[in-house]
Amino acid sequence: MYKTLREEAYEANMQLPKLGLVLFTFGNVSAVDRDKAVFAIKPSGVPYESLRAQDIVIMDYDAQVVEGTLRPSSDTKTHALLYKTWDDIGGITHTHSTYAVAWAQAGRDIPIFGTTHADHTHQDIPCAPVLTDDMIRGDYEHETGNQILDCFKDKTLSHHEVEMVLLQNHGPFTWGQDAAKSVYNAAVLEEIARMAYLTLQINADTAVLKDTLRMKHFERKHGKDAYYGQGC
Amino acid sequence: MYKTLREEAYEANMQLPKLGLVLFTFGNVSAVDRDKAVFAIKPSGVPYESLRAQDIVIMDYDAQVVEGTLRPSSDTKTHALLYKTWDDIGGITHTHSTYAVAWAQAGRDIPIFGTTHADHTHQDIPCAPVLTDDMIRGDYEHETGNQILDCFKDKTLSHHEVEMVLLQNHGPFTWGQDAAKSVYNAAVLEEIARMAYLTLQINADTAVLKDTLRMKHFERKHGKDAYYGQGC
Amino acid sequence: MYKTLREEAYEANMQLPKLGLVLFTFGNVSAVDRDKAVFAIKPSGVPYESLRAQDIVIMDYDAQVVEGTLRPSSDTKTHALLYKTWDDIGGITHTHSTYAVAWAQAGRDIPIFGTTHADHTHQDIPCAPVLTDDMIRGDYEHETGNQILDCFKDKTLSHHEVEMVLLQNHGPFTWGQDAAKSVYNAAVLEEIARMAYLTLQINADTAVLKDTLRMKHFERKHGKDAYYGQGC
Amino acid sequence: MYKTLREEAYEANMQLPKLGLVLFTFGNVSAVDRDKAVFAIKPSGVPYESLRAQDIVIMDYDAQVVEGTLRPSSDTKTHALLYKTWDDIGGITHTHSTYAVAWAQAGRDIPIFGTTHADHTHQDIPCAPVLTDDMIRGDYEHETGNQILDCFKDKTLSHHEVEMVLLQNHGPFTWGQDAAKSVYNAAVLEEIARMAYLTLQINADTAVLKDTLRMKHFERKHGKDAYYGQGC
Repeated sequence: MYKTLREEAYEANMQLPKLGLVLFTFGNVSAVDRDKAVFAIKPSGVPYESLRAQDIVIMDYDAQVVEGTLRPSSDTKTHALLYKTWDDIGGITHTHSTYAVAWAQAGRDIPIFGTTHADHTHQDIPCAPVLTDDMIRGDYEHETGNQILDCFKDKTLSHHEVEMVLLQNHGPFTWGQDAAKSVYNAAVLEEIARMAYLTLQINADTAVLKDTLRMKHFERKHGKDAYYGQGC
Repeated sequence: MYKTLREEAYEANMQLPKLGLVLFTFGNVSAVDRDKAVFAIKPSGVPYESLRAQDIVIMDYDAQVVEGTLRPSSDTKTHALLYKTWDDIGGITHTHSTYAVAWAQAGRDIPIFGTTHADHTHQDIPCAPVLTDDMIRGDYEHETGNQILDCFKDKTLSHHEVEMVLLQNHGPFTWGQDAAKSVYNAAVLEEIARMAYLTLQINADTAVLKDTLRMKHFERKHGKDAYYGQGC
Repeated sequence: MYKTLREEAYEANMQLPKLGLVLFTFGNVSAVDRDKAVFAIKPSGVPYESLRAQDIVIMDYDAQVVEGTLRPSSDTKTHALLYKTWDDIGGITHTHSTYAVAWAQAGRDIPIFGTTHADHTHQDIPCAPVLTDDMIRGDYEHETGNQILDCFKDKTLSHHEVEMVLLQNHGPFTWGQDAAKSVYNAAVLEEIARMAYLTLQINADTAVLKDTLRMKHFERKHGKDAYYGQGC
Repeated sequence: MYKTLREEAYEANMQLPKLGLVLFTFGNVSAVDRDKAVFAIKPSGVPYESLRAQDIVIMDYDAQVVEGTLRPSSDTKTHALLYKTWDDIGGITHTHSTYAVAWAQAGRDIPIFGTTHADHTHQDIPCAPVLTDDMIRGDYEHETGNQILDCFKDKTLSHHEVEMVLLQNHGPFTWGQDAAKSVYNAAVLEEIARMAYLTLQINADTAVLKDTLRMKHFERKHGKDAYYGQGC
């Protein structure tokens, strides 16, 4: 019944080691089926080398298992809350990729310094603050989702315009129209994080990109008159 | 009719992922046919894994499509203007390679610190200033070409002696006698950028290379009495 | 007689080059058989490309050869003392992996900055001080083991909760329930060392992880109510 | 007549790209035959992918071609002078490896910070000063050899105890008992350079290794009572 969805999630998960975004099992991708109101996610702690499509676990938006014998990713409740709240996203990726984690551990937004960044979003990549002790002691992974949602509300960011976030002391979450796009965004974020790191080492006083240029690059790729790509 | 030209452009484009210079579709190479007054360029947003020689688009120097069904690279007008103005270059490469972008985002020329650099040019690698708001709101990619040309005029640089440039907040453009040489220059620039970055981290007060040494290395490889290589 | 043990040690050693943790012969892994009171270790200076399972040397806890014709790793006495003292560990790995060595050379504990670290231990990674001149002139590799043991005593650390250590001016040692787990820990340590390095470059004043979060992540993976992984 | 020598040089040269020590043609290895008083060196500017054993050029110690149709490496005179002066070395490697070049460009000796370094030499890696203008305008590559020799005289270093040097603003030269060992030393130098770089970024005040420890590690591998390796 969920074969196609499982395969979408499986294929997207297998991109993580190929793109150098995970060490061992430090990451997970999910894909959603909006008609059936379920999502498919990697099982917890299973190495990518031995992962099979049939191991993928099917969950509902309240993080209850719908189908599957393995325990789902320990981060499942975060995925569930994001799917429930942002009802138009199709896939979510979480990794511990090196440079994105470094910015998250440093507790800093990633400033927009160039067009590589602006091709994907016209905003700094936000770093949601570390959870409060009550949130950590409570329903931790669910509250992780809340922390991300609150960060977007507080900064009045659109999750269509910014498809990536850092969680302080933890690491990145990215999303997109489907699972593959969320993985693409995870790789883009890692590269943006690395470039911004190097930029500040060369010139600690680098100013952020000016508005005209950040909007030009974002709009030529994502605006109504976009002319990047093949329009399909 | 343009089969050979398309294949030259195709082969050169396929070197970018092999040399680690691009993530996803963040780069493009073109090759020119001076007799026919056309150039061949990568189509916009097509992944390298699925790119085929027949997908390459043929353009004239005014950036009009001559042959091809796909939309050309969004940076095509920059290539066109450079071919039109510098009538002896044979290929152009644009990438978002990591270290070159970091220097471009920092808005700094890459100082000439050693013989690796001097083997390729005896000048600092120039960083052309960010475009004005009018240029960005106008014919953006054409003006990008103008910004590169103006930079070379302002600094009285020869595009034969310096086959590479950074565009502030964006990234590198390189060129050469043919498309393959422009890709070679893109890889050299990335390595020079990385070495210069590390040099300043070790010794922030490093002085640039003295004139005798920069000319010695440039001339032994490119001068009339050059003795590097097999002279063919 | 020791065929299985040799193969366990061989397979674990062969993971080091695959994980990018060694250059040439700069590392060694051992595996212990608690029933027979022996351990199996890589022979000294043998390249990984030519290493065979039958080359692995069998030693007792006093670092005497039990079986094998090749000379054991020069670090064998360190392994022996750790096995003798910590009678519940099953494997030990020593490498000169780049970032872990950099922290060891800098003589610094690796601060716990994020959940990647806390997933594996809730403490800073300790850096045992450099050996005294007497220890170096004496039974050097045995004293290296003593220095590690003293460090854990002085800081009242549990070798179950912290399965990794740096030795100042030298490099990392890691251990675990078997040889494969000790290699896993060596790779995790290298990644934690790299992330902490980058974190401090971005924000030199980064604070360590708060207690609630470090215990939450450690316990969800290693505590009695752990829910990470498949529980097997 | 020189088939074996050519093959030794060829095999050693082909290790450079495998070990990640060269981009394009930025490096060369030579091997000497002391009985015949000739050495074999890579031809200038030939890509590693198309290099064949028969392309290797045979030279005498005065840098005259003995056999071969291709032009030898532009650095040949440096190799020749080192073979002529240090009559017990068997191979020489020159690269532009990234971290070694960064230290050379910064004009700094690489301080001995740990046992990875001491396993190979008990001294800092010397950086020979940039050539004078007269030397550059004169017999440049020959004078490069003189600059290396003078550096070892001025610092009273033994070329047996220190088999590697940086040349300021240029890059590393390494040597050894044969060509393969000189390549090994080039790879070790690059790793030592990288570790020392990272060490200073973590702790700018790191002290060099104390004498007891540097001699202990050097002697256990290279002294008369060495016990590292299989003694063959």
